[in-house]
Formats: sequence, C-alpha cells, structure tokens
Amino acid sequence: MTDEKFMEMALALAKKGIGRVNPNPMVGAVIVKKGKVIGQGFHENYGGPHAERNALTSCKENTEGAALYVNLEPCCHYGKTPPCTEAIIESGIKKVVIACTDPNPEVAGKGIEALRAAGIEVVTGIREEEGERLNQVFFHCIQTNTPFVVMKYAMTMDGKIASACGDSKWVTGEAARENVHQDRGRYSSIMVGVKTVIKDNPLLTCRMNGGRNPIRIICDTNLYTPLEAAVVELAGKTGQGATIIATACQDKEKQEKFKQCGCEIIVLPKEKGHIDLQLLMKELWVRGIDSVFLEGGGALNFSALQTGIVNKIQVYIAPKILGGEKAKTPVEGMGIERMGDCIRLKNQTITKIGEDFLIESEVDYTCLPE
Amino acid sequence: MTDEKFMEMALALAKKGIGRVNPNPMVGAVIVKKGKVIGQGFHENYGGPHAERNALTSCKENTEGAALYVNLEPCCHYGKTPPCTEAIIESGIKKVVIACTDPNPEVAGKGIEALRAAGIEVVTGIREEEGERLNQVFFHCIQTNTPFVVMKYAMTMDGKIASACGDSKWVTGEAARENVHQDRGRYSSIMVGVKTVIKDNPLLTCRMNGGRNPIRIICDTNLYTPLEAAVVELAGKTGQGATIIATACQDKEKQEKFKQCGCEIIVLPKEKGHIDLQLLMKELWVRGIDSVFLEGGGALNFSALQTGIVNKIQVYIAPKILGGEKAKTPVEGMGIERMGDCIRLKNQTITKIGEDFLIESEVDYTCLPE
Repeated sequence: MTDEKFMEMALALAKKGIGRVNPNPMVGAVIVKKGKVIGQGFHENYGGPHAERNALTSCKENTEGAALYVNLEPCCHYGKTPPCTEAIIESGIKKVVIACTDPNPEVAGKGIEALRAAGIEVVTGIREEEGERLNQVFFHCIQTNTPFVVMKYAMTMDGKIASACGDSKWVTGEAARENVHQDRGRYSSIMVGVKTVIKDNPLLTCRMNGGRNPIRIICDTNLYTPLEAAVVELAGKTGQGATIIATACQDKEKQEKFKQCGCEIIVLPKEKGHIDLQLLMKELWVRGIDSVFLEGGGALNFSALQTGIVNKIQVYIAPKILGGEKAKTPVEGMGIERMGDCIRLKNQTITKIGEDFLIESEVDYTCLPE
Repeated sequence: MTDEKFMEMALALAKKGIGRVNPNPMVGAVIVKKGKVIGQGFHENYGGPHAERNALTSCKENTEGAALYVNLEPCCHYGKTPPCTEAIIESGIKKVVIACTDPNPEVAGKGIEALRAAGIEVVTGIREEEGERLNQVFFHCIQTNTPFVVMKYAMTMDGKIASACGDSKWVTGEAARENVHQDRGRYSSIMVGVKTVIKDNPLLTCRMNGGRNPIRIICDTNLYTPLEAAVVELAGKTGQGATIIATACQDKEKQEKFKQCGCEIIVLPKEKGHIDLQLLMKELWVRGIDSVFLEGGGALNFSALQTGIVNKIQVYIAPKILGGEKAKTPVEGMGIERMGDCIRLKNQTITKIGEDFLIESEVDYTCLPE
C-alpha cells in the first residue's frame, strides 16, 4: 500500500469522531511497520486522548522504526492532554505522514519542526484536500474565531416554506427530515428566530438514537420568547442541552426570569434593527460553539446572509407546488433590489434524498456588493 | 443486428424532425434486406411525405422480401398524403416492425390490420417506451384534444424570479438562457400573461440560428395589451410567427384594433376571474397547436396549474440568493392553504446547465385535491 492508501485509512478513522469531538478537529492515525498496519486510533471524545496516542496504545508490536499516518499535524503543546509529538518521539517512530498542517497558532508548523528536530522524516500534503474538507468546521473556526454556520431550509419546487396561513407540515418527505435530525446531532448548536419559537414551539432536539442534543440559540432582539416555550422548559434539563437567548433587550428583570429557567442570556447591541449577528458569532465561539445549524425563517435567514455569517447553505427541494403571492419564502427581509447584486453561491452539489433533492452550496462572499 | 437495433436507428431518424413536423408525430423508418440497411427516411416537414415513403424512395435495391422498421404504426387513411400501408404492400415488403401503435382514431390498429390482411408479418412493441417518450406531445394531443403544456421558470436558490421592484435580468446564466431559446423553437407556441407583456415587452422569438418562431399567445382577460407592444408589432410580419390574444373582453371595437395589427383574438368566458384556460387549450388544438411553452408570471402559472392544463414543469435554479418578503415568486395567485394539499410532481430529472440546475417534472394530477 502507498502513503495515499494509509492516509485514506486515517481519514476514515477520523470520521468516526463526528459530532463528538467539537470544537476539536476529527483526527485518525494509523501506524505501519514493514507495510503492515500494527496500530490505529482516532480522537473519540472532546477532552479525551488524541488519535496519535490511541494508535500508539493499540500497538501490540514494538513501534521502533514504524511510520505514522495522521490527517492533522501532531500537537506540540500542553492542552487538555500532553503534546503528541513527545509520545511519537518516544515511540521510536521514524516517519510521520501528515495530510494537513494545523492552523491553530499554538501548533502551526511547530509540531512538524519538533518531529524533524528529533530526526523523524516528515511528509506533508498527502490527501490534503480531503483532510481540509473533513475538518472544514475546525479550520474555519481556528482562522476566524467564529463558528461555521450552515443555513438549512426546505422549500417546494416554487420556493415556498409555508402557506400564507403558516402551514408548513411537511414540506419534505421522511428521508429528508431524518437527514436533518442527523445534522442536528452533527453541529454543536441550532439557531432559530423568536418568530419560529412563537409559531411552531419547536423542541429543536436531535431525534436520532444516540444523537447528542445541540445547544439551542434563539435570536430574540426584543426578548419576546414565551416563558412557557418548549426551548425554555428544556433548558438546563439533564441531557437536553442548553438554551441561549441572544437579545438586545436591556430589561434585567425580564432577563432574570429566563435565567431562572436555566437559559443563558447573551446581550448584544442592535444592528439594523436586529441583534448584531457577527458579534453573536464571536460570543458563541468564546463558549466553544464551533458550528451553528441555522433553521431560521425568512427574516433571520436574510439578516444572517446579509451580515456575512453564513458559510454553507443546504436547500431541500420537495416535488410539490404550493403557490401563493403571500406564501412564505426561505429568505425574506428587505431583499436585494437588483438581480445583478444577488448573493452568489459556489461549489454546489446535489443529492437525491428520498423523493426530495438536497442542493448544498458555499456562500461566495467575495462577490458581495459593497 | 436485432430488431431492437434497427428500431433504435428508426428512432434516431425520427428525432431529426423535431420542431418541424408539429402537430404530426416524429417518425423514422429503416428498410433492411438480408441484414443490411437498404433504405432509410424520416418525416421531415409538416404536410410532407411520411417516413415510410421517404425510406422506400431512398432504396436503390429491390425491396421485395425486405423488412421495414418504423417507430409508429403506418397510416391507412388519406390525409395530406395517401396511406403508407398501400405503398408498403406494393413494395413487396414481407415484415413490418413497429414501436408504438397509433392512438389516432383514424388509424388505431387499422394500419396493422391492413398489413396483415396483405400477408405481411407485423411485430409490435419493440422499444415502445422510447417511442412513447419521443412522441409524448403527439400522444397527449391525440388522446386529449388539447396541446401539451410545458411550464418553464427560472428562479434563485431562494425561490425568486424577480425583486420587489421587478428586476429579473438575469436569473440564470448564458447556457440556460440558450437552452430556453432552443425550447422555444421546439414547441409550437409560447404563452405569457398580459402582465409580462406590459412589464418586460418581450419579443418571444426563438433567437437560435435556423430556429422557427413559435406562435405567441397572450392571456389577457381584460384586453390590456398595449397596441404598441412588440408582440403586437411582430404579428403578421413574415417569418415572425402569429400572435394570438386570448381574452374575455367583449368590446368588438377594441378587438378590431388588434386584428388590424395582424393579431388573432380568441374570446373566451371568464372562470374565477380569469379566461377559461381549459377552453383556450381546446381552441388552440383546433388551430393545430400541439404544444404550449408557458413562460408566465406567478399569477398565470398558478391559474394554469390549478386548471390542470400543465403537463410538465421545467425549473431552472440559479446559484444565487435574492431575498425579499415582497420579491416575486414563480407561482403566486391565491395559493394552496395546506401543505398537504400541494400539487404533486413526479418523474423528476435533474441536469446541470452551465452554472444552473434544471429540474424537470411531470405534474401528477391524480393527487390533486378535490
């Protein structure tokens, strides 16, 4: 097998940590001696041992002279665990193959330096693109100090998310809805606007077996969330995840009521009549939230896009026509006046999920009008 | 080669008549003797000789004992040309292989009977499905006495066809727009609402080299079309195709002005505040119009879907977000109240055209709510 093949194994191992290591990256490691895999491991849980250590621990043979394949540059600093570079050097490994260097300023090439200084041969850039795609969320966070935001909506073939009277059950079929629940377990938080809370009173939980519940974030400029809303009641209950309400409302007494129910309140300045979403993103990253699954209505979706916080858009399209001049659409707000000034999307992929299509795109902010 | 292979050749020949034989079906024919193709032909122009005769004429060898492959049952009646069955019998052909029987009540099995009565072996149903797909428009018309209606619209990824102020230039990229011009040459008519005429003053021509201009149909309940509109000016001009205005306006004097410009006026009763579209379809078929390419705005599109005249929907989706609570969407009108009562689509296909997606669907009227 070649370096490429062993790295493929490491990447497959890394993926097993999905939804359980955030805000850490997913990392997998394979140890090879004389062309034979003698150890493997991955980063299994946030705070737990790194992939390299798990791989070393799994070895039943002597690692002297072996090669290590790992999709991210080994760390060289004391974090929640001691540096991996030390363990690698001690093990007698003679060659380390890496997919991506770690953009974390505490590592950023220093891990590779430490290994080379110890006489270890280091090869980098093997399956680098795949490694970057796998840890897209991590790379984004480390470089911007804000979470990776995925906007998701489900619309009919004529662009409607609900009828004029608000009926939206259901736009998509079962398979697509199951996919959404899987994504809720994959991202560390889920964000909606207060209008959605009032209209639908959603639980915003991950209804998958073994799924982890995301942190619920409510964008509520004026603190209109009803105290009896499901998201407030769930707040602080064991295993149900936290509820954060982001507001511009300064009324301490009103805030206190939500805090007593177990909610966290983040107070932010207003920006164009809406809480400052860019600032909210910074606040969320400070709290270790690396990803936001945005399931907003049209108003919040437009604000989020306009503010430039959205990285990826997932659009489910159902084989249905609803019609209606006054029906609800996925992105509303003031809108953009000129078609030529639209927000551009790029790198699109399409998947058929049950009876529906899922189109995923990245937002191309380089094309944003001034 | 097998029967299947020769029929594939016949189908490929048939396709060459696209856009030129309406409302006739596309037909191709291949004559085979001792496993060798000795003649071939297709129906080239409306009113011109049928495929079978063209294939017979092309033969340089004696056709005695040969086999004929044709995708549609040969005709046995005097139409614009004498019956093909006679020519086949005279030629000494001993075997005829057919994809589809002709649903035209004047043929409908009688062609096959005539051949068999003359001692010719007839095989049917070879590549029948492909034959049906190829002549979907013809089969629809013959069975319903109404044209085949294709609704087309182009929207952004958030379901908008124009901004609140009406700007819609351009939703899709060049490749998609070129594709639309190709389709305009393929269907025999193009239909829009008067609002589109007033707002965009479109030419509704096929801007492809060698493309045939479709007949323009304007749905104009109250006869609000401006006399100076491009579609009125083009009416009656050589090579520019006809303009039909469908209206419920009884004002003879007003009608006369359009007639003097070369427009045809079809007067229809009102149905839910709109000209009766089902009746319009019957009137169009009487005029030999076998297909309608519907490029309406939201109001006309909703009426058309609700009336049940739409057979196929083509949705171009551009990688853009426009936003806007008041932006225009592709299907508007009153809309449907309950998501569960939506108009259902089926047999969807998706194609990437340049930077855009094209999703094509059939309308499933069996699921229409009462």
